Parts: sequence; structure tokens; C-alpha cells
Amino acid sequence: MASYVAPVRDIRFALDVLADLPHLLTLPGFEQIDSATVDELLAEYGRFCEEVFAPIDRDGDKVGARLDPATNKVTTAPGFVAAYKQYLDAGWNAVPFDPAHGGGGFPWVINLAMQEMMNGANLAFALGPLLTQGSIDALTHIGTEEQQEKYLRKMVSGEWTGTMNLTEPQAGSDVGALTTKALPAPDGSWRVFGQKIYITYGEHDMTENIVHLVLARTPGAPAGTKGISLFIVPKFVPNDDGTIGAKNDVKCVSIEHKLGINGSPTCVMAYGDDGEGAIGFMIGEENAGMRGMFIMMNNARLSVGVQGLAVAERAYQDAVQYAMERVQGRVVAGGAGDTIIGHPDVRRMLLLMKSQIEAVRGLTYLNAAALDVARRHTDADTRQHASDLADVLIPMSKGWGTDLGVEIASLAVQVFGGMGFVEETGVAQHYRDARILPIYEGTNGIQALDLVGRKLGLRGGAAFNDLLDAIEGTAGNLADAGLGDMSIELSFAVGAVRKAATTLGGGEPLDAMSGATAFLRAASTTVGGWMMGRQALAAHPSAADDDYSAAKLVTARFFFEQVLVGVEALCDQAVTGSTSIMALRPDQFASR
Amino acid sequence: MASYVAPVRDIRFALDVLADLPHLLTLPGFEQIDSATVDELLAEYGRFCEEVFAPIDRDGDKVGARLDPATNKVTTAPGFVAAYKQYLDAGWNAVPFDPAHGGGGFPWVINLAMQEMMNGANLAFALGPLLTQGSIDALTHIGTEEQQEKYLRKMVSGEWTGTMNLTEPQAGSDVGALTTKALPAPDGSWRVFGQKIYITYGEHDMTENIVHLVLARTPGAPAGTKGISLFIVPKFVPNDDGTIGAKNDVKCVSIEHKLGINGSPTCVMAYGDDGEGAIGFMIGEENAGMRGMFIMMNNARLSVGVQGLAVAERAYQDAVQYAMERVQGRVVAGGAGDTIIGHPDVRRMLLLMKSQIEAVRGLTYLNAAALDVARRHTDADTRQHASDLADVLIPMSKGWGTDLGVEIASLAVQVFGGMGFVEETGVAQHYRDARILPIYEGTNGIQALDLVGRKLGLRGGAAFNDLLDAIEGTAGNLADAGLGDMSIELSFAVGAVRKAATTLGGGEPLDAMSGATAFLRAASTTVGGWMMGRQALAAHPSAADDDYSAAKLVTARFFFEQVLVGVEALCDQAVTGSTSIMALRPDQFASR
Repeated sequence: MASYVAPVRDIRFALDVLADLPHLLTLPGFEQIDSATVDELLAEYGRFCEEVFAPIDRDGDKVGARLDPATNKVTTAPGFVAAYKQYLDAGWNAVPFDPAHGGGGFPWVINLAMQEMMNGANLAFALGPLLTQGSIDALTHIGTEEQQEKYLRKMVSGEWTGTMNLTEPQAGSDVGALTTKALPAPDGSWRVFGQKIYITYGEHDMTENIVHLVLARTPGAPAGTKGISLFIVPKFVPNDDGTIGAKNDVKCVSIEHKLGINGSPTCVMAYGDDGEGAIGFMIGEENAGMRGMFIMMNNARLSVGVQGLAVAERAYQDAVQYAMERVQGRVVAGGAGDTIIGHPDVRRMLLLMKSQIEAVRGLTYLNAAALDVARRHTDADTRQHASDLADVLIPMSKGWGTDLGVEIASLAVQVFGGMGFVEETGVAQHYRDARILPIYEGTNGIQALDLVGRKLGLRGGAAFNDLLDAIEGTAGNLADAGLGDMSIELSFAVGAVRKAATTLGGGEPLDAMSGATAFLRAASTTVGGWMMGRQALAAHPSAADDDYSAAKLVTARFFFEQVLVGVEALCDQAVTGSTSIMALRPDQFASR
Repeated sequence: MASYVAPVRDIRFALDVLADLPHLLTLPGFEQIDSATVDELLAEYGRFCEEVFAPIDRDGDKVGARLDPATNKVTTAPGFVAAYKQYLDAGWNAVPFDPAHGGGGFPWVINLAMQEMMNGANLAFALGPLLTQGSIDALTHIGTEEQQEKYLRKMVSGEWTGTMNLTEPQAGSDVGALTTKALPAPDGSWRVFGQKIYITYGEHDMTENIVHLVLARTPGAPAGTKGISLFIVPKFVPNDDGTIGAKNDVKCVSIEHKLGINGSPTCVMAYGDDGEGAIGFMIGEENAGMRGMFIMMNNARLSVGVQGLAVAERAYQDAVQYAMERVQGRVVAGGAGDTIIGHPDVRRMLLLMKSQIEAVRGLTYLNAAALDVARRHTDADTRQHASDLADVLIPMSKGWGTDLGVEIASLAVQVFGGMGFVEETGVAQHYRDARILPIYEGTNGIQALDLVGRKLGLRGGAAFNDLLDAIEGTAGNLADAGLGDMSIELSFAVGAVRKAATTLGGGEPLDAMSGATAFLRAASTTVGGWMMGRQALAAHPSAADDDYSAAKLVTARFFFEQVLVGVEALCDQAVTGSTSIMALRPDQFASR
């Protein structure tokens, strides 16, 4: 089927209009980056993704990663090693990181655009660099200078990859239940014992070393999340001169047979199985491991939201191409066969995909831009407000972005009809690949609880209210620009969300927990409406002369008519309370 | 994971309360069937499905059906041949058919309940009998006495299976584009030449013969659907004494590698490849093949809706069992680990599954009961009204039932979290299996057009209005019973649907086509609300004393709070018109 096309024009539009890249490039540290450099980088990386990552996506799925149980070695799918080498050699991995560690010093939002393209081309491949980036972020924030010296440069360049080791069989969403142990060694290092599951790229053949970041408990640590520490456990312990040292007691003992992302090895990792313990080095303070985990997780959650966006865009491209080629039926009786893109219901599906993709692109890029402002702005107050905005948006980016990833991939299968159910067309792969996204890095149920239970209360509720006020500002601008119908609908949605937020914030915890998922969707859809409203404002003046702007305006209007219209009902669901939800005993759910 | 539990109690509740089985059993031909016989049959068949069909469901997926290209023979998955023999020997296939052809003479709605259990236990296996039943229906209605004599008894018993051959590579949703040819032979039979795709159980090793019903064109036939005739093309041409005769020129040339239902062989069938043509016998009049096809299709569409219900119930059972066993997190801080069924958001997902399953069970069973009334009632007017009701409900049963099949299977994966993405737990299979249901037997887009373009206009709109009036009657009953909140919500939904129907019926065709999918969902959800309202009325008096009734009432209330609440927004979507949907040129959908 269709090869991937990096949607560079739309990415650039979202960067400029929705994430306000021109402003970001004025922040300290970014002054040397100009607009032309950004253009060049996006175009070049887009081509790279199209030519290097996209062609190996199908084999990643069909052949997958394989474990040799005798040697504990994982062989990645055909082409993965060569593609990684090209990626490494071109220096792409370093683009967003601190020049002090060999990075390119680009804004995070540019990195997010690059992630979108990499994930769109090959979701399973992209997971490796994605997790490495999360590990880099944690090391940058809480690693010692020595640790940074030893690991960061190699990870920034991509010579070594990183992993996140949280989950254990009994400790998934409840990280505090983990039991992996770390015992002190005389030299100040630690010896780690335990088993971790669902470790993405826990073992592979693409780099000479792998840096595992592992959550474990030290002796006498308090129960729950307050007794967790974070450790570096390298596959090969580096020597002081930076060369590769002895093999550590870490191995992959099995890999999962999964529904999708088969190109990405999902490993069960055994630490200290051979007796002495795996050599580990504590990062940050003892029992403060959750902080490092949250740094990795926050970073990863936004990236996973972008994975939802990326798989949706990829599936959408397949569907558009199929709809433009497939002749079936007649839109108006009597004529010759039409391609199915002429049929209103097919167009409805394509616009539902396209409009929500553009809305999520706006949301996630805005989220990343807020992180850039929070890190770089000269004004402390502005930094704090941007940081709060980013925190509020992260559960929306992750939750809504990934739910839509699944829904849009499913719509793409539907556009293909019977051909969509046949694996050879490739669109079914996106439907399978996408399904992990609402689950990992915190299930979407947990995202909803995070929004309602923590983020709504940031700065006493002011952070969320600021967001709603900004959206109302756009509603005002829409009215001023002569887009009165859109203005009214956006205001109406904001009003419904504001009211629901007040109800949830002031009510019983169980009620808020019961309405959290509906509220997350309502709030995210409203932020999506904000993005589409701003898009409409930007496109409106030139819509009469320019096809691209005209399409932007139509797509925004469709979003308002067919998606934003659902916010009121979502808010009704959100404030219904917990009575019905908590009424049944567990056995009353049973079918016998 | 969980083995399947036939939900006999809930099926019986739906039969009695929602499909009014007691009334059906008073109709001519059903008088000899009493309530105890129905109980016994459901219990015994339920056990049969649990013990015979469910255990081979996983191997059906993992091993699948295989074609030997040298012999064109298909070997079904392990256990399928033996299970089919048990099914045949027990006489289950014959239950709903005319005693004149060896059938058991039971109402169709009982057959539908049996289909639910068979599909719940093993969707891929059930497709064989399901298509045989559609073929039997067509032969019963339009076959000659001689054809019925020759084929029906063997198909009713299940000794021979049947297939439906519609689709060709260029003729999917647009059946009229098919090109398979039938040439007259001197003896009054025909010679068929052509290739058909997506032929479910087109070849297999479970029976000695397969009866293909094939759509083809005769020489000089008009273009489009008006020039299509229907033919019997048996794999082995039966002799006049009913024994198996010569092998016909029909063969399976390949089978599809699919996303799901891997236990079911999806065949490319070649007719007349070896020169002389496949021997065929015309059923019904020349060029009137669409009538036979619609008989098969209508039958099959309702059955596919039940497949959606069945896969949803199966996935729900898996999710409930997992949620009752999986310990993770604490609902209230400080306690020990809880099973996840204590968490509000998990309960929300389970109730969203459970309530919609019960609503679809009501809808589809009501649909089948209307078919029984239409066939059996003594009053011609009552028969006509029931037939119209059945026609109105069929696109809802198929469209909504199968959309929910996919959505509920996806929710089940979410309840499992990471374990749901690992194939060994089995829940991912349902997510894969379910995805075909919104596509085959008429895509759900086509169901929506059928509802809006044809069914809304039945009897000048009176058929649809009668349905809405009946729902308002239930709203009145809810008020009388002291369930005033539910009464108001149901009336409100009916009002919104009635208004949208008027708008769509009186507007431009393109507008109606653009709003059809949203309207189908709005109308189906409202009928679902009707079913849940009637369920609440039946359960309400005993809810204080009886756990089952209490759960019914809670589930109905949840449906009103979380599902029915969306009808107004769906109606808004439905009447938005075609302006945005038709605005873009095809190339404006492209990402570059």
C-alpha cells in the first residue's frame, strides 16, 4: 500500500500558527536557529523517514524481533540494524539535546515534529529512540556530573540506547508494588536483583550498549512509592575511559508475542539471575526514584500522544490513497463508476480522521512548546505558567491522542472495506499497532485521573482556568473575524467544560473518578476546538485564493460540526456521579 | 483466559421481556412449543457451545485454515471437523427450519439466540452454519420444488453447507458491477465462468458437499443489478437419487491471510476454470437474482449484528474475569491491594460493555421476533407491520451491533492493560475478529444509507413513526412506574430522532447521505434505550429483593446516563448537511 509521506507542510503550519514557533526562536538558547534552518531540517528528516524508516515497517511487523533463548540475544527485523546506523551516522538523535552533551540545541517542539515523522514512518522502530530520549531527560535532570559524563554523550548521539524498567508482573499501574531489590556494594555501587516485564528494546542488536534505568527498593525502604530508588544498570559496565567494559548480569529471558508493534522487542528482563547481582548505580537520592520516573514518564507520555497522532496520520494517508483509487458505485445514479472518495460517507470518515489529526497535532505541539517556554523563558512567572499549562495538557495529549490513534486506524480499515481486513494491504497493521498506545506509559484511565485528581487543582485551579480563558479569547477572535457560528460553538463548549470542572473539583472523589474519562475527552476535544479555531483564523483571510487555506477552513468547520458538538454530552456524562458505577457487587457483573 | 459462558439467563430474559416470546409461541406453527422446551433447548445448546465450540476457538485463530495449492483442498483448524460432526449428529442445524424439510419448526428468534451462543463460543466456526442458513432461506423462498427436494433437506440437516458468492474484485459494495457469466446448456442447466472473492467457507473439509449460490450474468442481460441471476453451483453435482455425483468445475484457488476470524477460510473461488464451465442451476427468474440475494442478505445482516453482540459478550466475559482476579492499586488510599473491578473507571468500562450488550441483545431479538410475526401471524395487517418493523431494524441491528462489537472488544483489551496486548491472553483475538463485522454483508455506511434512503420511507414514513410511537409509549410507562427521570430522557431522545428523521427525509439526497451514519447511531441508540427502558420496567418491581433484577435496573440507568445522553449530539451531526463534507476536491485530502 501507500508509502509514508511526511506531512511537512502541515507540521510547519502547526509549528508556526499553533505552537508559535517564531516566538520560541526568540528564547535564550534558540536565537541562532532561524526559520530557514527549521524548514531545511524538517524537509530533510521527512525525506529520511520516508526513505529509511518507512520501507522496513512491514517487515518489522511480518518478521518481527526474535530471541535466541540459548544466547539471550535479540535479532531485530530485517533492515533495522542498517536503518539505525544511518540514523546514528546522520546525527538525528542529538537534535533536541543540550549542546553541552553533544546535542543540537533545538526546541523540544521540533523534536516532537521529528518524532511524529519517525513514528508515522515506523512506529515499532521509533520506540527505541523515544525511550532513549526519556532516559536522557532523566539523566540530565538528576544524574551526577560523573554519570552524565559517562552516559549522556553516548546516549545523545544514539550510540547507546536507553530503557525504562518500571513494570513487574504484580506492579503495573501500581508502580509502588514493585519488589526488585538493590543491595549496597562496598564500592558505593549497588547490586540489583529482580525481574522486569514489558521492557521495550530491553535487548537488541542495533547498538553496542544499552543503558537500563531500573526502579528498585533498597534494604529497609518504606513501602509503596516512597521507597523506590532509580538505578542505572548498563548492559556492559563502561570503563572510566568510556570504553565498553564487562558484561553485566542482565539478560532478556523472553519476548512477548504481541498484537502489534512486532518490530519492537518487548522483553522480560532478568537482573542478577546469575548470583552476584547486576551492577547498578543510583541516580538521584535514595527513595526518590519516583521523581526520575516522572521525568521519564512525562516526557514519554507526550511522545506517546504523538505516536497516536503519527499512526493516525499514517492510516489516514493509506485511506486517502485507497479512496482515490478504488472505483465502486456511483455517487449520483446513472453515471459511470466513481472512486469512493466521491461518496459522502467516505468523505465523512476521511474528514473525521483529518480534522482530528490536525487537532491533535495542534494540541501536542502546543504542549511541547509550553515545555520549551517553561525551560527557556527569562521570566520566572511565565516559566511557571507554561510549566503548568504543559502539565495540564500532558494527560490530554496522551489520552486523547492515543484514543484517536485507535479510532482513526479503525476508520482507515473501514474505508478499505474487505481489503482492510486482508493483512497484505497493510492498513490492518496500524489497527493492531495503535492498540498499545492507550495502555502503555499510564493507561488512559490513569491519564484521566491525573487530569481530574491533580492537574485541575494546579495553582488552586488557576492553571486550568487560564487555559479555558485563552480558549474563550479565541472564541472572541472568531466572532471579530466574522466566524460567528464557530465562536458561539467554542464558547459553548468552554462553558460546559468549565462547569463540569467546577462540579468535579468540588465533589466526592469517587464521583470525580467516575467521570474522569468523559471529562478528559470533553476537555481535550475543547482544546482541539481551540486549535481548529486558531487554524480557521489563520486560514480565513486567504481561503478564497489558496487551496491549502481553504481546506484548513473546511476541516476546522467540520471539526466544529461533527466533533466539538459532542462536548456537552461528554460533560453530562462526566458529572453524572458514581451511583450507578459503584452500585453492583463484582459478582453481579458475571454472565451466569 | 476465560472459557465462554453461554449467557442463558440473560438470553431468556431478552426473549421473554423484550422479544415477547410468550406471544410468539401462540402463533400458528409454534403452538406445540412450550416454555419448558425453550428452556431445555437453550440450556443444552449453551452447554454444547461451551464444551464443543469454545475450546477450539484459540486453535482456530492460531493455526487457522490452510489451503494446499496442489489439490485446492482446504484443511480447517484442529478440532473443527470433529466439532462439526457433533453439531451435525445432534441435529442442531435444523432447529429453526420448516419441518417439511426436516427442520424443527422453532421461531427464528430462538435460532438467533442459538446463533449468539455459537458465535460467542467461536465466531470463525459459526460463520459456516450462518451462511448455510442464509442459503436455506433463499432456496426456501425462490427455489423450485425439485431444487428444494434435492438440496434443502441436506442443508437443513447440515450434511451440506452453503455459501454466498457475490463479491468480485471490482464488485464489492457495488454488486451490479459483477461480470461472472452463465451460459445456457442444452439440458436447461447453465455453465458458469468467473472468479469470486471473499467466499466464506468456499472450500473446507467438514462436509461431503458444498452448495454455492452464485450471482452471474446471462448473455444479453441488462447492465447493473437488473441483469443479475442467481445459480446453484454444487461442489459435487447431486445425482437424481440424492447421492453425490461428479466433481464440478469449482475450486478454491487461494485463501486470504486476514486480521482475524482465521479459523474461517476466506476463499477466492474459480468457476469454470478448466474449460467447460461449472454446472449451475438457475434459482428464480432470469435477471431477478437480486431478490434471492436480498433474502440471503437480510437474513445474514441480522445474523452479523448478532455476531457483533456475541463477540462483545465474549470479550466482556474475559474482561470481567480479569478484572475480578487482577490485583492492582487501591481504590481508597491506605488499604491493601484491590482487584481492579473496584476501580470506578474499570467499572465504567465494564458497565459500558454490559449495558450496550444488553441493549443490542434486545434490539436484535426484537428484530428476529418481528420476522417471526411477519411470517406467522394470522392477520395480514399485523404481518405487514411486523415485516416493516423488521426491515427498519435490520440496518440498526447490523450497523450498531457490529460497531459496538468492535468498540466493546477494544474496551476489553483496555481492561486487560498490557496483558491485553499480549496475544496469549486471547482477548486481542476478539479485537481482531470483530473488525470484519462492520464491513461484510454490506458495510455499515451502506446500512446507514439503507436506513435513511429506503427504510425511513416505508409506508410513507409510517413504519418508522410507529416505532418511535412505541418507544414513547414506553416512556409513558416509565413515568407511570415512578421512573420519571428515565421517562424524560427517553422522550427527549425520541423527539430528537423524530425531528432529525423529518429533516433528512425532506432534504437533499446528499445531505441525507452525509448525515446517515450519525442518524443510524442516534436511532439505534434510542431503540437501545427503549429496550433498556422496558428492561427497567420489568426489573423495577423486584429490584429490592433480587440481585439479578437490581443489576438490570442499574445497567439500564447507566445506559441512560452514559449512552442515551449522546443522542441529541448525534442528531445534530446527522442534520448538519453536506456542505463541509462535499467541499474539498479529492487532492485537497492529500498530506503533501
